Parts: sequence; structure tokens; C-alpha cells
Amino acid sequence: MSLKFVLAPDSYKNSASAIEICEAMEVGIRRVFPDSEVIHVPMADGGEGSTEAIVNATGGKFIKKTVQGPLDEQVEATFGIHGDGETAVIEMATASGIQLVTKEERNPYNTTTYGTGELIRHCLDNGIKRIILCIGGSATNDGGVGMAQALGYQFKDKNGEEIKRGGIHLKDIVSIDSSKVHKDLFSCEIFIASDVSNPLTGPEGASAVFGPQKGATPEMVTALDAALSNLDQVIASEMGKEVGAIPGAGAAGGLGAGLLAFTNATMQRGVDLVVEATDLKAKLADADYCFTGEGQIDFQTKYGKTPYGVLQAAKEVDEEIKVVAICGSIGEGVHELYELGFDGIFGTIPAIVDFDMAIKNTKHNVTRISEAVTRLLK
Amino acid sequence: MSLKFVLAPDSYKNSASAIEICEAMEVGIRRVFPDSEVIHVPMADGGEGSTEAIVNATGGKFIKKTVQGPLDEQVEATFGIHGDGETAVIEMATASGIQLVTKEERNPYNTTTYGTGELIRHCLDNGIKRIILCIGGSATNDGGVGMAQALGYQFKDKNGEEIKRGGIHLKDIVSIDSSKVHKDLFSCEIFIASDVSNPLTGPEGASAVFGPQKGATPEMVTALDAALSNLDQVIASEMGKEVGAIPGAGAAGGLGAGLLAFTNATMQRGVDLVVEATDLKAKLADADYCFTGEGQIDFQTKYGKTPYGVLQAAKEVDEEIKVVAICGSIGEGVHELYELGFDGIFGTIPAIVDFDMAIKNTKHNVTRISEAVTRLLK
Repeated sequence: MSLKFVLAPDSYKNSASAIEICEAMEVGIRRVFPDSEVIHVPMADGGEGSTEAIVNATGGKFIKKTVQGPLDEQVEATFGIHGDGETAVIEMATASGIQLVTKEERNPYNTTTYGTGELIRHCLDNGIKRIILCIGGSATNDGGVGMAQALGYQFKDKNGEEIKRGGIHLKDIVSIDSSKVHKDLFSCEIFIASDVSNPLTGPEGASAVFGPQKGATPEMVTALDAALSNLDQVIASEMGKEVGAIPGAGAAGGLGAGLLAFTNATMQRGVDLVVEATDLKAKLADADYCFTGEGQIDFQTKYGKTPYGVLQAAKEVDEEIKVVAICGSIGEGVHELYELGFDGIFGTIPAIVDFDMAIKNTKHNVTRISEAVTRLLK
Repeated sequence: MSLKFVLAPDSYKNSASAIEICEAMEVGIRRVFPDSEVIHVPMADGGEGSTEAIVNATGGKFIKKTVQGPLDEQVEATFGIHGDGETAVIEMATASGIQLVTKEERNPYNTTTYGTGELIRHCLDNGIKRIILCIGGSATNDGGVGMAQALGYQFKDKNGEEIKRGGIHLKDIVSIDSSKVHKDLFSCEIFIASDVSNPLTGPEGASAVFGPQKGATPEMVTALDAALSNLDQVIASEMGKEVGAIPGAGAAGGLGAGLLAFTNATMQRGVDLVVEATDLKAKLADADYCFTGEGQIDFQTKYGKTPYGVLQAAKEVDEEIKVVAICGSIGEGVHELYELGFDGIFGTIPAIVDFDMAIKNTKHNVTRISEAVTRLLK
């Protein structure tokens, strides 16, 4: 009887794409079972690679669009359209990401999510009904106000003037005018793929926790936190929504809160969105084995990283599917992951090697360990 | 139904003893199958640890005996008596090993295997019927002449005088007098555990290949090779034996040849001798799984290292026993080992770590990978 393997790894960061890991796993499996059924479902967890995973899994397409970057410069952003033609996948970092700003330019007083809003607007203009919005890697601390501006919201100061773009100017907001909002905004469902649960403000909030890596000094953190607090209060008073304390409101410099306040959005675990969009569960039907993995596995994996999401999906489909994680390296606390249901956790580093050597041989090592694991299944 | 695991690893050199590896493996196995039957058979391949493996496996004992070291100094050597009371295990290095000589003192012109001969003599005096003689790690290049002298052989020069001890003096031998040889020598079977197949002389011989690491300069290599050639010729003319070309004759500075010429010895693969002496095959009866391993596994493993010997033993007992190698590190050419029959080959290094860290965490890592492997068997 032919065995069925479903390969659903994340990429190994800095080393190999999820597609490459699938290919390397398959080589190892076929050395043992040449005639097995092997299905590739390259995965992501809502971070980098999510668009690619969904577009590739569904026969979708990539779209390029020029929008305003975090500092209002022109950037060419790429987003994806799911094979169903009605679902878009946007990684906010493509329009408003930290990688678009040089280290010297990093200044969350000024950076804006406007470009992310432009991408959403473009989707609405083109009949998109659902957007998976992956919000990691932002350069911004503007509470999603820039994004909302691009969708027609107007944020006014005490003189009735529109505030300037950038996180620091949220302190001036006294009212929000939604009369010119895009007509299709609320008929489009937005699924926020987030892997952080921080609130909007306070010591665990966006400014305090993520501000420094975006270029904020301690004084700036205090000012930005106060600015977000003002936004939060105006949202409450003007729109009757309490979003600041929702877990994830502080993601992407408060874009989480902005999406919850200004759009028809819900917050979800990134990997679950990718699992659903790639139709992983249907592909797992009748599978005997599911191989997953990521560059590093450790106790944090249980907080929604790809291997854990894939494990849960597989065991929901059928408790009997054996789920094996093959990972670049094995970190602390990996043992507790067995309690979650993994059937095997294996690293790929063969010996005492340096970083360059490990990166260089990643695919070879994934093949080797995939073969070793598969032989045990024989 | 309870599963039976037989654990038969070698030591991980510089890191953990074979006993410790067994213990670490068992911890991992019992996390998955707490009630399984787990049998420890710490192994060796005729190198370091062989005496310990055999004595421990058979309830034997260790004996200490003061003999003459490689430079005629007194050394306290340790050898083992098998639980049967009739078989001894001698590692020649305990009496004539390179570790007994400082780097400055290394001089294969002068070093002698006399102490190894004394240990054999002591065994004969005490009724030993079989000796497993492990001949790795020698400081000597004397063709086993010192060993033979301790057993009563006399090697004479052209004046009828006994030659001096040390490899260079073999050049003076013109005759061999065996009239005073120990009376029980030929009723004792000697099994030479060797893992090299070099001939006695020539470019692949003892002096050329192993002389330099024992302190020989190029000129000394030439002189020592000529001296061993003379020994070989005198053995042929005086004793009618052709030993120089036998694979392994060049092991331990020609001790291989000397044992074949002067005693009732046969050459065997070290691991096979340990497999037999530890009764591994009987312990493998009804086993479901056999875990073996060593500090490093690579293409050389197939030349008689412990994991390969254990694999062959297990498959001879029952083709159905799954044999898994768990090794400190994975080297080149490991893939070809699957063709020999291994059911899985796994390394223990979890990530990019340095040597000290790898050594420090060996037992922890062996437990982790043993658990991962065992879970797949569930």
C-alpha cells in the first residue's frame, strides 16, 4: 500500500524557502519509499513568506503596486491574490515595513501605514471580499491612522485641520470623520494575522515594547505612548469602540487597534489563516505522515509557530496522522512540545559546524534526516 | 505487548563512556515506553574500552600487574578476566602504549612490546586458555620481538648474543631460539583484535605509516622498515612462516606479525571479538530494537567500527530487529551505510554549538534523540 506524506514546513529563515525544504524532504522520503504519494504545502505563520505560501498553494497570483512607503516615499509593494480570486494576502511590511527604512532614517514619530491602506483600497476597488493582512515587521507606530487615512478617514485637530502623518501627530486628534470612507470597506472581511498579543499602550504596549527597535529613544517612547493613548480615547468617544486592551491591539505599532477600530477586522493566529487559505486540512485527508519544520524549534513554537499550527491541523483531521518536525536547530524546552502531540522532533545539524556551513548544507541535511526518519517508518 | 530494546553503543570518545550512553538512551526510551525491556550491552571495537566492555558484560574482573613499559620503565598495567575465568582481555596499550611515553621520549628505535609479553606470560601462568589481545595505540615498532622475548624466545645476532630491546635492533637478528618458550604458549588461543590491515613492511607497512606518529624521522622510518624486513626474513628461514604480507601484520608496529609468528594467534575484527565475548547475540534474542552508536559515524564505520559490527550481529540474530545508530556527529558518506542495513542514523548535535558545549551536553542530547526516535516507533 502506498503511503501518503504531506510536507508542510515553514521556511528556514536565512537559509532555505519553504518550497526548498519540501523538495529536500521529498528526496529523503523517496529514497525509502519511491512510490509514495508526497504533497507539498509550503507553509508560513503570518510572517514573511505567507503571501507566497498562499498564492502558490492555490494557484493565485502576485500583484505589484506602487504606494507610499513609511516615510511617504514611493515603494513598489507586492501582495497576493488567492486562487479563489476574492481573497487577497497582504504583508504590511511590503508597504510599511522596517526594511524599507535605513537605520539612520528610522523614526516612528514620522512613519506611516498609509501605504498599507492604499493596498487595501486597491483591493476594495477590485472586488476583493476578504483580506488576510499579515502585520509583522512594521516601521510604524501610528495606530493604523495612516492606513485609515488612505481608506478615507479624516483625523482632525482642535482647529478642524487634518493631522499630519506619523505617530507623534496622533496626540493632536480630537475628532474622526468617517463620512468619506471607502464604500466597500465594511463589506470586506479583514483577517489580521498577528503573532503578538500586546495591548495598544502602557508598559506592554506598542511604543514601549516595539518602539525602540524602530528608532524611538526613551523620551520618544513616552511621547508615542501618550499619542496612542489619545487615539484610543478618541476612538472610544467618537466611535464607541474599546480596542486598546484587545490582545494584539499593539501589534505593528498599533495597526492592530486601528484595523479593529476602522475596518471589519478580526484578529487570528497567522498560522491558522495560512492553514485555512492553503486548504491544508483537505490535503491532509488520508495522510499517513505529515512533516513540518522551521529554522529553529523551541518552547516558543507553541505560541503559534508553523509547526504547532500544522500539528493541530493534522491531528484535527486524524489523530492517527504522525506529525514529525524537522528543524534547522533544536532550542530550549523542546521536550515540552511532545506533550502537545508531536510524534518526533529532529534537528538537521550533523556535527560541530559553523553558521555558514550549516546554512550551505541545509537542504542536504534536511534530505538526510528526512531519509533517516522515513526509514524508521518502514 | 512490551517492547525489547538492546542498547549496544560504543563510547563517545572524549565525551561519554559506553555505559553512560546506554543510560542516556534508556532515559529517552522510557519517556515513551516506561515498561519496555531495556538491556545494556556497552560495546567497543577492540580499541579503548574493550576490556571494560567485556569485563562488565560478563561479570569478570580487572587485574593490575606491574610490567616493563615501552622504555623498560615499570608501569602498572590493567587487563581483564572474562566472567568465564578462562579468557583474558589485554589492551596492549596498557603495557606498551604511546600514552606511556612523553612526546620527547618517543623513539621507536628503542620502544619494546616486552610488557605486553609479560602480561601474556602472566595469563599463561594462571591457566588462561584464550586471550583477546587488542593491539591499538602502541608506542612500538619492534615486530612483537619484545613480546616474544618475554615469552622465552631468544633472538640472536651473528655472534650468538641476544639482541638488545627496541625496533632498530631487529636488523641484527640472524637466528631465533625457541627452546625456552613458555610451555603453555601454544595451548592458549590468542585472538588479535585489529582494525588495520597494513602489511609488515614497505610503503604501506608499520614503519612508513605509523612510525612518524611514534617519533620516527624519515631516516628512522627507512632503518626501521629494513629492520622489520630482516625480522620477516629470519622468521621465514628459521620458522618456515610467511607472516609479513598478512593483512594486519603491520598493526601495532608489527606486533601483528609477531603474534602470528610466535604464538597461536589469529587476526579478527575487534568488534566481532567484543560481540562474541559480551554474548551480544544471545542478548539480542527477541529484541525489537537495537540502538548502537559512537562518537562519530561516517563512511569509515563500515570498516569494522562498533555500529557496523552490532548491526551485523543484530541482523544475523533476526532480520526484523531494527537497528538505529545514534551518534555524536554525522560525517561524510553516511548515506552509503543504509545500504548495509541500518534502519536509521541520527546525530545528537542540536544546533550550532561549540565543541565544549557539545561535549557537555552529550548525555542530554543522546536522551533527546533517543526519545525522538522511540516516539516514531510508537
